[in-house]
Amino acid sequence: MSDLTSDAIKAKEASRLMAVLSTETKNNALSEISKALLDSSELIFKANREDLELAEKTGLETPLLKRLKFDETKLNDVRSGIEGLIGLEDPVGKKLLHTTLNDGLELYKVTCPIGVIGVIFESRPDALVQIASLCVKSGNAVFLKGGREADKSNRALASVIYEAGVKAGLPEGWLHLITTREDVTNMLSLTEQIDLIIPRGSNEFVKYIMQNTTIPVMGHADGVCHTYIDKDADIDTAVKVAVDAKTQYVSVCNATETILIDSSIKDQIVPVLYDALREKGVEIFEEDQVEDWHHEYLDYKVSVKFVSGVKEAVEHINRYGSGHTDAIITKNMETAEFFMNSVDSGSVLLNCSTRFADGFRYGFGAEVGISTSKLHARGPVGLEGLVSYKFKLYGSGDTVGEFASGEKTFKHIRRNDI
Amino acid sequence: MSDLTSDAIKAKEASRLMAVLSTETKNNALSEISKALLDSSELIFKANREDLELAEKTGLETPLLKRLKFDETKLNDVRSGIEGLIGLEDPVGKKLLHTTLNDGLELYKVTCPIGVIGVIFESRPDALVQIASLCVKSGNAVFLKGGREADKSNRALASVIYEAGVKAGLPEGWLHLITTREDVTNMLSLTEQIDLIIPRGSNEFVKYIMQNTTIPVMGHADGVCHTYIDKDADIDTAVKVAVDAKTQYVSVCNATETILIDSSIKDQIVPVLYDALREKGVEIFEEDQVEDWHHEYLDYKVSVKFVSGVKEAVEHINRYGSGHTDAIITKNMETAEFFMNSVDSGSVLLNCSTRFADGFRYGFGAEVGISTSKLHARGPVGLEGLVSYKFKLYGSGDTVGEFASGEKTFKHIRRNDI
Repeated sequence: MSDLTSDAIKAKEASRLMAVLSTETKNNALSEISKALLDSSELIFKANREDLELAEKTGLETPLLKRLKFDETKLNDVRSGIEGLIGLEDPVGKKLLHTTLNDGLELYKVTCPIGVIGVIFESRPDALVQIASLCVKSGNAVFLKGGREADKSNRALASVIYEAGVKAGLPEGWLHLITTREDVTNMLSLTEQIDLIIPRGSNEFVKYIMQNTTIPVMGHADGVCHTYIDKDADIDTAVKVAVDAKTQYVSVCNATETILIDSSIKDQIVPVLYDALREKGVEIFEEDQVEDWHHEYLDYKVSVKFVSGVKEAVEHINRYGSGHTDAIITKNMETAEFFMNSVDSGSVLLNCSTRFADGFRYGFGAEVGISTSKLHARGPVGLEGLVSYKFKLYGSGDTVGEFASGEKTFKHIRRNDI
Repeated sequence: MSDLTSDAIKAKEASRLMAVLSTETKNNALSEISKALLDSSELIFKANREDLELAEKTGLETPLLKRLKFDETKLNDVRSGIEGLIGLEDPVGKKLLHTTLNDGLELYKVTCPIGVIGVIFESRPDALVQIASLCVKSGNAVFLKGGREADKSNRALASVIYEAGVKAGLPEGWLHLITTREDVTNMLSLTEQIDLIIPRGSNEFVKYIMQNTTIPVMGHADGVCHTYIDKDADIDTAVKVAVDAKTQYVSVCNATETILIDSSIKDQIVPVLYDALREKGVEIFEEDQVEDWHHEYLDYKVSVKFVSGVKEAVEHINRYGSGHTDAIITKNMETAEFFMNSVDSGSVLLNCSTRFADGFRYGFGAEVGISTSKLHARGPVGLEGLVSYKFKLYGSGDTVGEFASGEKTFKHIRRNDI
């Protein structure tokens, strides 16, 4: 048995114990982890400085160096993130359904952890802290693989978090750091131990993971988001919202990449919209300049298409979009409802910026990622994406034979105590 | 482009229209389908008789011939199934969450259809009718592949159902019958058009499908179900429930395959339990006679193991079970809660038969299948397994910039009008 398999078996065993931890134990562990991060900050900063030095030598680009950096500010951020998590409701043990099947035969549908979650994340060491804390709160054991550039930082953080967690009552083996690519490949075949894989990174990377495992994958494809300006749009609103959707932060997945405009209002909207976009430094590509409508610029660039109405807009989005986030600007509620029901995306928005599609803005507190899959979790995913459910049936010696013979009959009374 | 791909593109287009159908249109279509099945019954019975004749010639076994048969009784069954479905609440458009992000910025999480569902099912022609009706009610387009033996029956049923559906307002291309194995293989690569595959059949078959597609699969592994008799069990209850769990219907996935017994009550329980089981014709295999504890007999056979208590019982179940359905018999509520929280299965039961784990008995009306996966849907799956959700955000010209600058702040008020 490989080391990785034996670590995964330990993680599976740990996950059984994580599943029955009290809310108090989990919150206390989070609090101890937060304290330990502060107490060990010098050790963590030192490891991070070593990663940074090596990264500078190998010529890592400045934005990536920024993401790699883990300093006082980042430490404060992750610690206040943990505080926020402690304040959130326990996602485990929530009743989703209660039905009385018959006298003394009570059915409950109750949330429970998923088990062991494998997360592969980018070079930000703060991501390790966030993921580990989310897993504590949701009662899951976790396998972590971070970016190679952050190797020393990740080792330091994982060790501090793991030890503090165990001291506070989390089971041994609850967190395991993977450090080689070979182990990532091996992890993909651990179908008996790993219950869910969350790959964070490029579209190609997520696809690669999906094609190489039968373990369920909660993935995030690219964000080809649209803002459609309808003929019944308020022009001021349209300009204000479209400019925000494109420019408020260009390098993120919920920024608008294509603006669709009803051609009947072309003359009214184009001069003022183009001026406003160009003022922010946006380069505009019209129809004949666009080679691929399924394109994520992540830059001060936008595609513009004129359409014959909401129907063509919906068709364009469903054909070329990525099912992430799409908005309509209109004063006509009938048109809005048609758009919001017909566009097949995780988030559909009326008269506001696509940039709102985000777990924190939606009020979920913590965000695992944004799912473009339609199964399990869709759109911005909070803690509820890290839990499953099970049915609990409390009987009094009931047999199916008694119901099959007609001696007893099902009542199926829905209860509201959930 | 292959014919299958073009049919899948049509189904995808149809699914956009299915998603916005009113409850009334869907229920009316179901009602028309039910009528058409009655009106065309002679045509359907004739096709079925031809299938049966061929199956008899090729020596199909009697239980399989029984399943293949589609007669007056089966027709009445599927028609009353459709009536039941019409009476159920529309699973589409249900509000799951409502949060006021800020004045005039309202977030809703609303259920919506999944899109196009590919179902591969066994030789029962009545399964085709059930699946097609479930897809109508949940607003999904569907690709169907039935058993080869039922080819003529399936063609007749699919054609009657499709035509009646279109006449009643369902979009063209909403249902498509696949008839060759080659097309099944091709379907597995239609990642752009098919949103979910539901394979029904043997464990090996489901695994094969999972290994050969990146489309999400809602699968059903085998049912290695356990009944654990605790030291604090009421002996009469234990015997009554265990016998029902094993013998009420042996060839189904929720029948108990292994009985675990606390060894401290061995002398009290064994004589009476074994007598009761043998009276029903059950062959009992004790520890040294059992080669594989992960074994689904689907027969009048049962494995028995003596354990040191609830802890060992839970460990055994989590190790050898299939995560399907497991029961504990005890009067001790603390032991019961430990068992029900620690056993990692879709259904966990106290003092009642594992045979209860079923969509109809749980009161879901219609059952898609029983999922042993932990993502999306788990345990008996009703209509809610055929829907996803999307976030709808209604704004008033809101930009993220206004919130980033501090001009506006999030209120995140949870609303209870859901």
